[in-house]
Amino acid sequence: MRLEVVNTGTELLLGKVVNTHAAYFGQELFKLGLRVQRQTTIPDGDEIRTVLAEAFPRCDVILITGGLGPTSDDITREVVAEMLGRPLHLDEGILATIHEMFRVRKLKQNLLNDRQAMVPEGAVVLENPNGTAPGLYLPADAVLGSPHLFLLPGPPRELKPMFADLVFPVLSRLLGEGNEPPAWRNFRIYGVGESSLATKLEPLLATLPDLEIGYCARLGEVDLRLIGASLSIEEASLIVRREFPKDIVVESESSIEEVIVRLLAERGETVATAESCTGGLIASTITDVPGSSAVFHRGYVTYANEAKTALLGVPVEMLAAHGAVSDEVVRAMAEGCLDRSGANHAIAVSGIAGPSGGSAEKPVGTLHVAVATKGGVIFSKRYLYPFDRISFKQRVTRLVLDLLRRRLRGIDLD
Amino acid sequence: MRLEVVNTGTELLLGKVVNTHAAYFGQELFKLGLRVQRQTTIPDGDEIRTVLAEAFPRCDVILITGGLGPTSDDITREVVAEMLGRPLHLDEGILATIHEMFRVRKLKQNLLNDRQAMVPEGAVVLENPNGTAPGLYLPADAVLGSPHLFLLPGPPRELKPMFADLVFPVLSRLLGEGNEPPAWRNFRIYGVGESSLATKLEPLLATLPDLEIGYCARLGEVDLRLIGASLSIEEASLIVRREFPKDIVVESESSIEEVIVRLLAERGETVATAESCTGGLIASTITDVPGSSAVFHRGYVTYANEAKTALLGVPVEMLAAHGAVSDEVVRAMAEGCLDRSGANHAIAVSGIAGPSGGSAEKPVGTLHVAVATKGGVIFSKRYLYPFDRISFKQRVTRLVLDLLRRRLRGIDLD
Repeated sequence: MRLEVVNTGTELLLGKVVNTHAAYFGQELFKLGLRVQRQTTIPDGDEIRTVLAEAFPRCDVILITGGLGPTSDDITREVVAEMLGRPLHLDEGILATIHEMFRVRKLKQNLLNDRQAMVPEGAVVLENPNGTAPGLYLPADAVLGSPHLFLLPGPPRELKPMFADLVFPVLSRLLGEGNEPPAWRNFRIYGVGESSLATKLEPLLATLPDLEIGYCARLGEVDLRLIGASLSIEEASLIVRREFPKDIVVESESSIEEVIVRLLAERGETVATAESCTGGLIASTITDVPGSSAVFHRGYVTYANEAKTALLGVPVEMLAAHGAVSDEVVRAMAEGCLDRSGANHAIAVSGIAGPSGGSAEKPVGTLHVAVATKGGVIFSKRYLYPFDRISFKQRVTRLVLDLLRRRLRGIDLD
Repeated sequence: MRLEVVNTGTELLLGKVVNTHAAYFGQELFKLGLRVQRQTTIPDGDEIRTVLAEAFPRCDVILITGGLGPTSDDITREVVAEMLGRPLHLDEGILATIHEMFRVRKLKQNLLNDRQAMVPEGAVVLENPNGTAPGLYLPADAVLGSPHLFLLPGPPRELKPMFADLVFPVLSRLLGEGNEPPAWRNFRIYGVGESSLATKLEPLLATLPDLEIGYCARLGEVDLRLIGASLSIEEASLIVRREFPKDIVVESESSIEEVIVRLLAERGETVATAESCTGGLIASTITDVPGSSAVFHRGYVTYANEAKTALLGVPVEMLAAHGAVSDEVVRAMAEGCLDRSGANHAIAVSGIAGPSGGSAEKPVGTLHVAVATKGGVIFSKRYLYPFDRISFKQRVTRLVLDLLRRRLRGIDLD
């Protein structure tokens, strides 16, 4: 079953918004064993006509997002109705739902939203409890040669529940009962480059039948993806574990923050954070995980020197002698964080995120890290990540979380 | 000049990675007055051949990302060379650079990376100081009917500098001297829905010639985009300002955090944060802005009750009587934060991010906010954002930053 995704939205092509739908669809469809064969983004307006006309003959299913909104640049509904020769009629039920939604939210009624109650003949209405635009499903039409078409709203908060509740079951039914998704495994690996990984693994995995190997390198981590026959994946996994015993974060889609929260929870322990250059990102990343309140009780964002002294007890003289970005200060931050929080583990960072503030001795990207645990500082080190400000914060957060993971798993930190 | 973008990467279609290139290109190309007419994502492998064959006749320029890496699923270089009938040869200069890069980074040499030194005949090599794979520029070939092709690396840290330094100037030259980008303005608006905005504005803007109006609604904000004739944009801007005097955050691409850092810096004032449910995201968002250290000195992440007491002085009895998610507690947090930090403004949040922890009286999504400034709490309110955990944290951060903006601009907070 060939499936494509078409995203409409001038804002996507102008770069005002990052397209997250494509990734969401990919993840969800894989659960059914479906791959997105192609994803296309086009501006609002007439281009949808051309793209659909090209895609109809090669597709069994097309998921279309956007262009169902209330404003004048939203025309997906009208174009599809016209291409299929299905006149639009006003659906009184949808209209009543829209008016009720405005009443409940105490918003002023406006005629623009009424357009969203227009439905092409023969379309199945997909309810949208999170917005005014309902989705539409137009089953494949053998005479016209049109595939199954799903017209879905653009905003992710509306799209995702609609897809999960109303589209996924239809696709599952279309695939039939015998459908079985392929086996797969994902290894998230820290501290090893993509080409070193491949050089070591590919000769060892080359003889395994029906095994698709994929890599994806990001800041500080590489995902190794195995898809194919169960037996090959099992055997490949043994090889990967044997070759990279210290570097595998997790054999799943779990993020490193999920791993850490789980490891801490299993031990009944807590971590506290003392952040300078990351400005709260480490704490925020840990607290992205549901249930993190059991293992994370407090964090200090000590951006200014006087905050490092007041909140963590870093001596004024030490700051004057060595500067805030130094091994001495970051160790004192970690110790102060551990003592004052009463947590089992403390992690502290101080660095130069840039773009200004660097010097010859401490250029932009310089980072000092310390990890403390009952008894005091057990690790500290200087790193250099000469990235832009946001990438620097993200990279440092990944590093610190991996140091904590290694600590919790009893692996060397260096 | 018709330009399209082709992103290759199975990980993009499997949803392992969100495609940020499309948005980046959109932003950069708009500076030249160029629009991306279509963006296509395809898996690693042979699909690139089909997509390029389709795109060649309709395009003047194609930007292709990905598939230049060292591993077996990277084949863009080879496919393009074959389609254009240009044999690949080993470029000794690139090879030496790759080997030097491995030496400096103390990484083990491996043969896989050597493939990245292969260059199709007639290609211009685009240096990559941030990775091993150089980019390639293949000028349009009238005989073959191929457009200008730019082969660029997938990782954003490598792609962006290469595009800015080496691709942008070539495109600018291709457009010629007379090229003039269109005028545009972006209004970022808080607290007004997309359809209300359109209902009010569209009749007023309808008569202005050569004016393209676009909307993009996100969690808690709407972008109104005007593109076209300078005079129409000026007139439209006067109307927008008149109709929404309190709701416009900024007339630019600036984020609300940039606006706040600028407003505070202009007044020589500081803000401190006391966060429970956002877990550090507000502090991290503010410190994403270069120069924020002038206006943000510290933040408290008081996730547990005892942290609220220890760090902010919230009375134990108050927590017991009202619960951590209450108007009383959030006001005490804001007061404690203001007093202890010495900042000019303090913002405090406490809420239930979910997915668990809700009750009938305080369901998941409940939020209490307080804003304090010299003299004490000047505003507090309860809100309900029944979103998923991450969206909740983001929405709350947007809300709080907008409250601070209003405060700094002297606009009612409610």
